[in-house]
Amino acid sequence: MRVTEEMRNFKAESIGEECAARLREAAREARMWAVVATSAANSGHPAGALSSMDIYITLLGAANVSPELADSPERDRIVVSHGHTSAGFYAALAAYGFFPAHEMAANFRRAGSPYQGHVERDVPGVDWGTGNLGQGLAAGVGFALAARARGSKAHSWVVMGDGEQVKGQVAEARRIAAKEKLTNLTALVDWNDIQISGRLEDVMPADIPALWAADGWRVLECDGHDYNALYTAMKSAAASEKPAVILCKTVMGKGVSFMENIPDYHGKAASGEKLEEALKELGGDMSLFNAALAERKGPLPAGRSVKLERAALDTGAPRTYTKDDKKDNRGAFGKALADVGELNRKKEGAAPLLVFDCDLAGSVKVDGFAKLCPENFIEAGIQEHCVATAAGAASVAGVVSVWADFAVFGSDEVYNQQRLNDINRAGTKTVLTHSGLDVGEDGMTHQCIDYVGLFRNCFGWRVIVPADPNQTDRATRWMLAEPGNICLAMGRGTLPVIVDEKGEPFYGGDYKFRDGEIDLLRDGRDAVILSMGHMAGRAIEARETLAAEGISVRVLHCATPLSMDSERLFELTGGLPLLTCEDHHADSGLGAAAALAFARAGKAVKIKNIGVTRYGLSGSNKDVLADMGLDAAGIAAGVRELLK
Amino acid sequence: MRVTEEMRNFKAESIGEECAARLREAAREARMWAVVATSAANSGHPAGALSSMDIYITLLGAANVSPELADSPERDRIVVSHGHTSAGFYAALAAYGFFPAHEMAANFRRAGSPYQGHVERDVPGVDWGTGNLGQGLAAGVGFALAARARGSKAHSWVVMGDGEQVKGQVAEARRIAAKEKLTNLTALVDWNDIQISGRLEDVMPADIPALWAADGWRVLECDGHDYNALYTAMKSAAASEKPAVILCKTVMGKGVSFMENIPDYHGKAASGEKLEEALKELGGDMSLFNAALAERKGPLPAGRSVKLERAALDTGAPRTYTKDDKKDNRGAFGKALADVGELNRKKEGAAPLLVFDCDLAGSVKVDGFAKLCPENFIEAGIQEHCVATAAGAASVAGVVSVWADFAVFGSDEVYNQQRLNDINRAGTKTVLTHSGLDVGEDGMTHQCIDYVGLFRNCFGWRVIVPADPNQTDRATRWMLAEPGNICLAMGRGTLPVIVDEKGEPFYGGDYKFRDGEIDLLRDGRDAVILSMGHMAGRAIEARETLAAEGISVRVLHCATPLSMDSERLFELTGGLPLLTCEDHHADSGLGAAAALAFARAGKAVKIKNIGVTRYGLSGSNKDVLADMGLDAAGIAAGVRELLK
Repeated sequence: MRVTEEMRNFKAESIGEECAARLREAAREARMWAVVATSAANSGHPAGALSSMDIYITLLGAANVSPELADSPERDRIVVSHGHTSAGFYAALAAYGFFPAHEMAANFRRAGSPYQGHVERDVPGVDWGTGNLGQGLAAGVGFALAARARGSKAHSWVVMGDGEQVKGQVAEARRIAAKEKLTNLTALVDWNDIQISGRLEDVMPADIPALWAADGWRVLECDGHDYNALYTAMKSAAASEKPAVILCKTVMGKGVSFMENIPDYHGKAASGEKLEEALKELGGDMSLFNAALAERKGPLPAGRSVKLERAALDTGAPRTYTKDDKKDNRGAFGKALADVGELNRKKEGAAPLLVFDCDLAGSVKVDGFAKLCPENFIEAGIQEHCVATAAGAASVAGVVSVWADFAVFGSDEVYNQQRLNDINRAGTKTVLTHSGLDVGEDGMTHQCIDYVGLFRNCFGWRVIVPADPNQTDRATRWMLAEPGNICLAMGRGTLPVIVDEKGEPFYGGDYKFRDGEIDLLRDGRDAVILSMGHMAGRAIEARETLAAEGISVRVLHCATPLSMDSERLFELTGGLPLLTCEDHHADSGLGAAAALAFARAGKAVKIKNIGVTRYGLSGSNKDVLADMGLDAAGIAAGVRELLK
Repeated sequence: MRVTEEMRNFKAESIGEECAARLREAAREARMWAVVATSAANSGHPAGALSSMDIYITLLGAANVSPELADSPERDRIVVSHGHTSAGFYAALAAYGFFPAHEMAANFRRAGSPYQGHVERDVPGVDWGTGNLGQGLAAGVGFALAARARGSKAHSWVVMGDGEQVKGQVAEARRIAAKEKLTNLTALVDWNDIQISGRLEDVMPADIPALWAADGWRVLECDGHDYNALYTAMKSAAASEKPAVILCKTVMGKGVSFMENIPDYHGKAASGEKLEEALKELGGDMSLFNAALAERKGPLPAGRSVKLERAALDTGAPRTYTKDDKKDNRGAFGKALADVGELNRKKEGAAPLLVFDCDLAGSVKVDGFAKLCPENFIEAGIQEHCVATAAGAASVAGVVSVWADFAVFGSDEVYNQQRLNDINRAGTKTVLTHSGLDVGEDGMTHQCIDYVGLFRNCFGWRVIVPADPNQTDRATRWMLAEPGNICLAMGRGTLPVIVDEKGEPFYGGDYKFRDGEIDLLRDGRDAVILSMGHMAGRAIEARETLAAEGISVRVLHCATPLSMDSERLFELTGGLPLLTCEDHHADSGLGAAAALAFARAGKAVKIKNIGVTRYGLSGSNKDVLADMGLDAAGIAAGVRELLK
């Protein structure tokens, strides 16, 4: 709509009364549609939608967004952190022509419709799907970092609820924004003082202005239903010399008298006479509702399709390590990352690499990259929840976003953030070091033996567990340009380079990493070992022991347990007894995947899964693996038992 | 040792110079052992151990702790949140006679020893195992809440690092403590201004005093190497009218000149000449180190065994719902919880129930309990990370600790906290509502389709997914008295009561809940359906459809997918084609468990797993389940396909 042409991109100094009147009218109509939507769905959060409406209407009028820009890299990003106000944000988007309001209202929360219960990227104008509270500011940090890395003027706006202000991830995001001086980020808090269970001071008191100020933000306050005040505050915040938050004092349920300040309508739609009353107060009537119900029986609207694209990145020439090199996979990852960083730095048309660290750069080997490309290295401290989300959001905003951390922190600690990255169809590259039992002496709290078992629960994540430094190098380069969320996992220890029977590096030279592939490392006649990651070398060692006893073993390796090619597995196993081995939980990793594949294919096979079956000890790698039966001797014993 | 008799329980007003001298001597010796321990292990974090030493020595001398009290319910609890300073805390415990110092130093980080890399409960004097930073204060909150509920004077002390101050969970814990006025909780921050990657202000700046003050804590500062100052601050904090934090200004590596203020020794042990120099400065010599190396080859020390005990709780008489009752499992859980709460409230000898909520009491049905037992109901706001840990710690301190939340928040969002509860052998009772696709219209961000798949990665957690309100009632009562971490999961919708062929409630009357059991709900000849949770009723409905087509189906239900009795499964399946159904991820729930059991037993079976195979839609329950092929029609179709 044309109503706000003069305020777009904050051109005007302030909003005149005439412009405010147009916004007021747009907001009235959008409120009406939000009520129709929730009532047609008989579900949703009307009161919050009404509370945030004037913020949405003002922001969508002033920010650099429009239906035409909805997929432009240069648009401002708007994150609605309290995603349950979806009916309100959708209705405000409709007011600006992103899609027809009646279509949204009729299809809100209808199975198969893009207008889902919490804001999702299938709706044009929605930049990040939310719903689990307290995570939106972190997404805004990701967008702001990506814009800066790309040299773009795109501003990030995050609209938040007040109840979620106490969630720890919010504080983490504030601190990263302050440290990084993200002046291209503005937060707006819908401060109506009511959450599901009642008043904020009763549910969980918090001094909201003091918390933002303590983390170094500029704090503005304004009436969240006064268009001029909102506009002026946003304009001021956007030009601020440090990240700014606008605390917008609002009224829950604003615009429908019986919903105002009533916690009950937080999560309940109006119906019957109450609905009639609400629509009347908003200048409408029941015909809108009835029309929505009728349209709800019609065809489903399409929504936007989110595209995943390969990154424009030169991934360089792979390095080959020879059998005399003593190297850990971490080091090979770090070298490859630094190579690619240097190759693409400031290169015309290349997607910037953005690398996140949580106070472990030296251990996770991103220090090399940090030295070469300091401007694209984000030291975020011990704040993993924010980093997981920020890295996810950055990955959908034109950068290649890499986060390396100890495996327990990059997967276990932030599993839900990674799940939400998956739902958002992001392209996060998460590198987990110190995975499995291979963590040195740190002990069970640091042994991440479940990363495959966790990511298995998502539908998009892929996991790579390379066997040696050569495969790590190639997997790293492959991953950096590949779309989608990918996790690259590796242990801490130095590893022998896997060689073929001629002594040449198996994963060196022209070897190309392929998702799903099973590698035949050694042939054999009596039994098959299927290994994952650093167990490959140990499996080859076990094969030698067994050969001396007259047992001939075929050794396989699969680096991608979640996408393993089952048909190829059946073929390579060829009916022989199968031992799977991994320093991962025995019930949820590669072995479980193999067993499941056989079971579902109705194939009986003699199978044994060795892996982690209890929490590991704290001691040297060698002792810890031996204790769990996962050293070469343990693998050999497993084969012997299988052949009994 | 007797050195600090006068300061125990803060009897003395202040520490005289003579007492301080004794503490100084004890600290010197403990520092020496900490260096020996890390060097003997050639691993660990010596500089942090030295930094915190004077805090540990003072606290262990003044708090109500001793080797004799190490398992007493009335002892003070000490949580070391920066668990990597283990060598320091262990050495300080040894100084007070908890175990011999040489034993600890010789066996530090040795595989199979209790003296693990990060503090663990196997060591007497350690109340909570940590290592993943930022979680200790939440454990302290749990201990303080438990003490208050038990009417105990036990004080909770949490010693923290400075780098972890920025972790969001810390802020959550602060707010809960302030709201609950936990004057029996004191935090001590070892503020040496160095974390692994360097100075705090370079890694992640934070205004530490302002953050604590903004959350309503009393903030004290003192020299963290001055015994009198430490003692006085602790005494003052313990008597404070609001929770207090003592910011202890310290020197990283204190006591060994070449380690002081050097980040490098954060995670590196001294060796060779450097070790010799360190020991000399601390008044020792290499003979200690050599003796430790010799002892390290000897037998392993035993450590403490952590016992799990049944709670002293009257779980009352079960309620039976009949086939005319329309009830959701949530409601049945809420009723049973309120019943047990009322029965045991203020009852002599009964373990107090402590129930945590994160702003969803009405939805997760703990509101009934909250009304009956308001003093034991903790409304914690939207701060799940803290609650998960606090509920875990409380459960090992004499209360029955229950946390109910939407499933995505109680499992996905806090998976790592729940994993650490498992490592701590806690007894958390986590109730997940809105699990599976059964969440109403909220959509994919709120559909928790992975809780079995997540808890499968732990070794202690048990999961219960009851079929109907009767089984929910009985499982709730069973769980409340049972030791260990247990997750009870249920959807949102109302469900038919499962009845037997005579129309009597199957799980009513005398039915007793048993972990691992598979229930035969209906017999049949042609195929078997194995169902989980609310799919049981739908499976029975599908059976009726199929019966009309001449297909006879046996219907089984297993509420405990992680402990399912495999032999009984083989027996009840009896070689018939098997369809598993669940509204859980198809690769990681009940179906995967069943397939894995058959595969490992080398049994070929015709099996098909139906479950969740992509993110679900946002719409009515009925539509969402139908779309995923998980309504009765979808189950019937699955059986037909299986029999093709």
